[in-house]
Amino acid sequence: MIGCALIGYGYWGPNIARVLHESPRTKLRWCCDLEQGKLGKFARRYPGANTTTRVADVLDDAETELVCVVTPISTHFDLAARALERGKHVFVEKPLAASTDEAQKLVKLAAKHKRILMVGHVFEYSPPVRKIKEILDRNELGKIHYISCTRVNLGIHQKDVSVIWDLAPHDVSILLYLLGEEPRRVSAMGRACIQKRIPDVAFMNLEFPSGVIAHVEISWLSPSKIRNTIVVGSKKMLIYDDTQISEKVKIFDHGVNYHDPETFGEFHLSYRTGDIVSPKVDTYEPLSAEIEHLLDCVEKGTKPVSDGLSGLRAVRVLESADRSLANGGKPVAY
Amino acid sequence: MIGCALIGYGYWGPNIARVLHESPRTKLRWCCDLEQGKLGKFARRYPGANTTTRVADVLDDAETELVCVVTPISTHFDLAARALERGKHVFVEKPLAASTDEAQKLVKLAAKHKRILMVGHVFEYSPPVRKIKEILDRNELGKIHYISCTRVNLGIHQKDVSVIWDLAPHDVSILLYLLGEEPRRVSAMGRACIQKRIPDVAFMNLEFPSGVIAHVEISWLSPSKIRNTIVVGSKKMLIYDDTQISEKVKIFDHGVNYHDPETFGEFHLSYRTGDIVSPKVDTYEPLSAEIEHLLDCVEKGTKPVSDGLSGLRAVRVLESADRSLANGGKPVAY
Amino acid sequence: MIGCALIGYGYWGPNIARVLHESPRTKLRWCCDLEQGKLGKFARRYPGANTTTRVADVLDDAETELVCVVTPISTHFDLAARALERGKHVFVEKPLAASTDEAQKLVKLAAKHKRILMVGHVFEYSPPVRKIKEILDRNELGKIHYISCTRVNLGIHQKDVSVIWDLAPHDVSILLYLLGEEPRRVSAMGRACIQKRIPDVAFMNLEFPSGVIAHVEISWLSPSKIRNTIVVGSKKMLIYDDTQISEKVKIFDHGVNYHDPETFGEFHLSYRTGDIVSPKVDTYEPLSAEIEHLLDCVEKGTKPVSDGLSGLRAVRVLESADRSLANGGKPVAY
Amino acid sequence: MIGCALIGYGYWGPNIARVLHESPRTKLRWCCDLEQGKLGKFARRYPGANTTTRVADVLDDAETELVCVVTPISTHFDLAARALERGKHVFVEKPLAASTDEAQKLVKLAAKHKRILMVGHVFEYSPPVRKIKEILDRNELGKIHYISCTRVNLGIHQKDVSVIWDLAPHDVSILLYLLGEEPRRVSAMGRACIQKRIPDVAFMNLEFPSGVIAHVEISWLSPSKIRNTIVVGSKKMLIYDDTQISEKVKIFDHGVNYHDPETFGEFHLSYRTGDIVSPKVDTYEPLSAEIEHLLDCVEKGTKPVSDGLSGLRAVRVLESADRSLANGGKPVAY
Repeated sequence: MIGCALIGYGYWGPNIARVLHESPRTKLRWCCDLEQGKLGKFARRYPGANTTTRVADVLDDAETELVCVVTPISTHFDLAARALERGKHVFVEKPLAASTDEAQKLVKLAAKHKRILMVGHVFEYSPPVRKIKEILDRNELGKIHYISCTRVNLGIHQKDVSVIWDLAPHDVSILLYLLGEEPRRVSAMGRACIQKRIPDVAFMNLEFPSGVIAHVEISWLSPSKIRNTIVVGSKKMLIYDDTQISEKVKIFDHGVNYHDPETFGEFHLSYRTGDIVSPKVDTYEPLSAEIEHLLDCVEKGTKPVSDGLSGLRAVRVLESADRSLANGGKPVAY
Repeated sequence: MIGCALIGYGYWGPNIARVLHESPRTKLRWCCDLEQGKLGKFARRYPGANTTTRVADVLDDAETELVCVVTPISTHFDLAARALERGKHVFVEKPLAASTDEAQKLVKLAAKHKRILMVGHVFEYSPPVRKIKEILDRNELGKIHYISCTRVNLGIHQKDVSVIWDLAPHDVSILLYLLGEEPRRVSAMGRACIQKRIPDVAFMNLEFPSGVIAHVEISWLSPSKIRNTIVVGSKKMLIYDDTQISEKVKIFDHGVNYHDPETFGEFHLSYRTGDIVSPKVDTYEPLSAEIEHLLDCVEKGTKPVSDGLSGLRAVRVLESADRSLANGGKPVAY
Repeated sequence: MIGCALIGYGYWGPNIARVLHESPRTKLRWCCDLEQGKLGKFARRYPGANTTTRVADVLDDAETELVCVVTPISTHFDLAARALERGKHVFVEKPLAASTDEAQKLVKLAAKHKRILMVGHVFEYSPPVRKIKEILDRNELGKIHYISCTRVNLGIHQKDVSVIWDLAPHDVSILLYLLGEEPRRVSAMGRACIQKRIPDVAFMNLEFPSGVIAHVEISWLSPSKIRNTIVVGSKKMLIYDDTQISEKVKIFDHGVNYHDPETFGEFHLSYRTGDIVSPKVDTYEPLSAEIEHLLDCVEKGTKPVSDGLSGLRAVRVLESADRSLANGGKPVAY
Repeated sequence: MIGCALIGYGYWGPNIARVLHESPRTKLRWCCDLEQGKLGKFARRYPGANTTTRVADVLDDAETELVCVVTPISTHFDLAARALERGKHVFVEKPLAASTDEAQKLVKLAAKHKRILMVGHVFEYSPPVRKIKEILDRNELGKIHYISCTRVNLGIHQKDVSVIWDLAPHDVSILLYLLGEEPRRVSAMGRACIQKRIPDVAFMNLEFPSGVIAHVEISWLSPSKIRNTIVVGSKKMLIYDDTQISEKVKIFDHGVNYHDPETFGEFHLSYRTGDIVSPKVDTYEPLSAEIEHLLDCVEKGTKPVSDGLSGLRAVRVLESADRSLANGGKPVAY
């Protein structure tokens, strides 16, 4: 049984608590939060665990092996660093940290103390994204031309971070996971419509060394919820619509054929539209798969799919987008 | 009866011919095209009109008052200029010309010769866009925060111009029409996936003096056809989906309420979601409305909604997008 | 605090248990089920309540005022009757009983013992159906012409009752609730595709004294889940699609206008298509509203919206449909 | 070149005229209509053909081999019979005739005079229905359990025939074509909402000797246009949605597995949900394919897919539905 502590019982923390509690491999030992009211709620649900407002209580507990940090982004670094230094394995909600610099330090600390550092890029564990990864890995789409992602809805405005740090980590982690490369250039344009200095709508562009380009549209100000990813390859194309109950992923056997000048006098393009297949996609809960993977890594000492480096790479994109935004949309090269 | 000539009988020309022919106000006198095969097709449908491969035949005809230029973009300027100089009213398919410089010269020529110059920004005459214009003009959405447009489908790749000059004129003309202002900064990122040096996917950003931002995604390489425009205002929001048969426009009585710090200790946001209304939208053909408007202007000597200046403003955006694209996505200021 | 007992902890029982437990007005005292395994699950979640396999334990408990019967349909009558006879208020899951005769006896028993008898017609408490009832009550649709309901999905096949007794109670209760009248004729056609003698697809027709006709299509064998109700009135029309997350109810200002022979020589029809409005619909859980209403009735001694008579009327429709089905689809008159 | 005549230039006639005119195999010789205005319209479009208000002109023309009857249903029999008796091949718009008796006589006349008699069951020539026929013919769905069809929209009310004779011929012909058998029992329920004695909404049930059941919902009074056919088989299921631009046909690899009592103590059902495939469907115009087939049959003397017998079988269903309707929904056995 892995002794676990949870730091942060706000919006997402209760979900982590539930999954940790339900796993037969863990013993949920602590919940730490600054607000007594939240600790009270936790205690009513999990009377067997301890609560505290002091992080030190958690870190001092020798039987706590794994610390899950589910707090505001600005506190990720400090909490994760302290836990790693005390020899704990650490899970941090996305994004890993508030800056590349902080993320880099966490990666080093984890290496130094030989501890697992995992970031909660939950979509890397979701059935449709896993299915798309399989499809790309067996080269079913051919060479990728571009990917376009839209993640917009009404709310919830954050007060400390922009929509880029709140919603884009999902798409950025999906893009890096699917493509297996880091962008060489990032730009962003956006607007702070409701709160001053906190953009609530943004359009990000990423250019990758392979030539792939990607676009991410994110907004807290949209009349309807859209969760759409289009992946266009040289052989096939794919749409992933996460708002659908069934048919979340559709593969289109569509493409453009290039016909030789020798045959036609000059080159000539034709369009191919074939079957559209919506492959069966598993229906397990992404968060459960994420936490099970975390526990596997802790037990076996293996590297998580979304390890510290993965978290660092995502943070670098967000930071670059922020810099571009501050600089009038000028692209930021890596 | 307005004597009309059509130059160009390719993809779009036949539609113009049909509408001109059906109007009781016009006499379709000429069709000019470089390909005899196309002239033959025209002649079979409209045996009462003349055909020619020589533009001079058209321009020399004193009874031709109105010349419609529906040719490849690179020829717009030369043909329109010659027609204006010969005292003809001129309609040019979108975009007005291949450069700001050309567009500007056409505007001047039209003024000098006191002739109508109109560009085929057909969406400015389409029922849903007209309805949205009404909605904005009566301030139903409040202050506009941002507009996001998507216009993607599979094909048809052009050989001479990029997707920016082929598809974006629609969205750019819609944006300028709805907002009534020119952007102060334009940027674009894209990729030439199929043909070298001819981008077939692009992401454009526009920033306007009023603070409104707009985004335009265009592609010839998309598995499914999307024609979507989201307009987010401070009071309400709107979605225009041109692929729908009914309910093309939906107004969402949704918004964010800002609550005063005095009431709550610190400021506080809440979300309002009300009725969604899909207003009745007329169903006439946009092209007919466009040509009727053209004929009105010719008859009465009035200024078209999509006049030469309107065409010039759209071309300036496209040209700026091209420059940004050539410059790695760096925004181009006006 | 109303002392409550739950009989039946199968598919739906746990939901009732949750809502009873969360209400501040109740004390969940008992769960009775024939399977120890289910009682074990209940006990882990609600350690403060008692479990038993004997109904008598529940009925003998003087502090249990309200008994909720959530068992297979064939047992509804016996359990509900025994509870009423012991002076308990009784809630029975839909349908109220396995026959009109049984339902009638329950209604009489409840009257005799002056106890609340309520049936779990949960849709009568759901926000979209309540909204539609409001719309009909203020005559917004005009005179109702017809209603067509579709409720199909893949599974879950029951072993003891047909799809008519499993799915149709929802639509039948909605129809009776909306129209406020009982049909005068019912027919049904169906087929037992998978299990012998247990129809898993059926088409029901209802004719009402007012002239309204209604159709109900129900199936456990459908490739996709459909929950659709179309209400056509003389002034407006309405679609209720319960699979949508937003826009569950849409009101169409569409209709047919009858023009007088005097004006046109002969009579003449024209079509009117106006705005489509999706009114804001509350988002509370129907089951919670149902149970709160039950508790109100118990506390105040008032008649439930879905009282025993309401349950009886629904059972009469189901029974008639069964008779028609057994008789080759011949309509059954009331 | 097959000499052709068209009788009836109302709603559908112009489409037949267009296709006949465009075919290189035909010479469109005559258009006959009672209204001079319609003949004028025809003449302007097809100056090479003759027009007349007298059927005799058409029948007397020795060079007219093929007569297409596109008139009100009540006139089908008389016109088709006269043409057959004069040795013409005859095409009749659906439904073939106004009664089984009439249809039967036409079949006999065609046989006697050795002429082609074809009915315009246009969906039997449409790409999606042809694709579905292929799928059924290779037994991809397994044994068919049931088929449910919905064909509803707002308008157009006919003054002489009910919605059953106007819309249901499409679904009935599709059903007979797909299943290759005639029903043994038909019932119908409906209502005349707008015009007296002319039902504008109806629900039809068909039972086939193989055990398959089918349902057809048709209405001129529906807020939105629905064209939906669900085919449920023992191996797979299929949805055909004709309102979609792409993905009109979807095959669901879904089903129910029956597990043996020997394995489980008692029998046990489980559900299988696999891939969903939307096969590529051709995009040719059904009407063109229909007319090309007609011309093939005329040239080669072969039997049309939708021959007189096919027309007769469809009329028998409509007539039975009418009888059931008149008889309070009582099923009519064959």
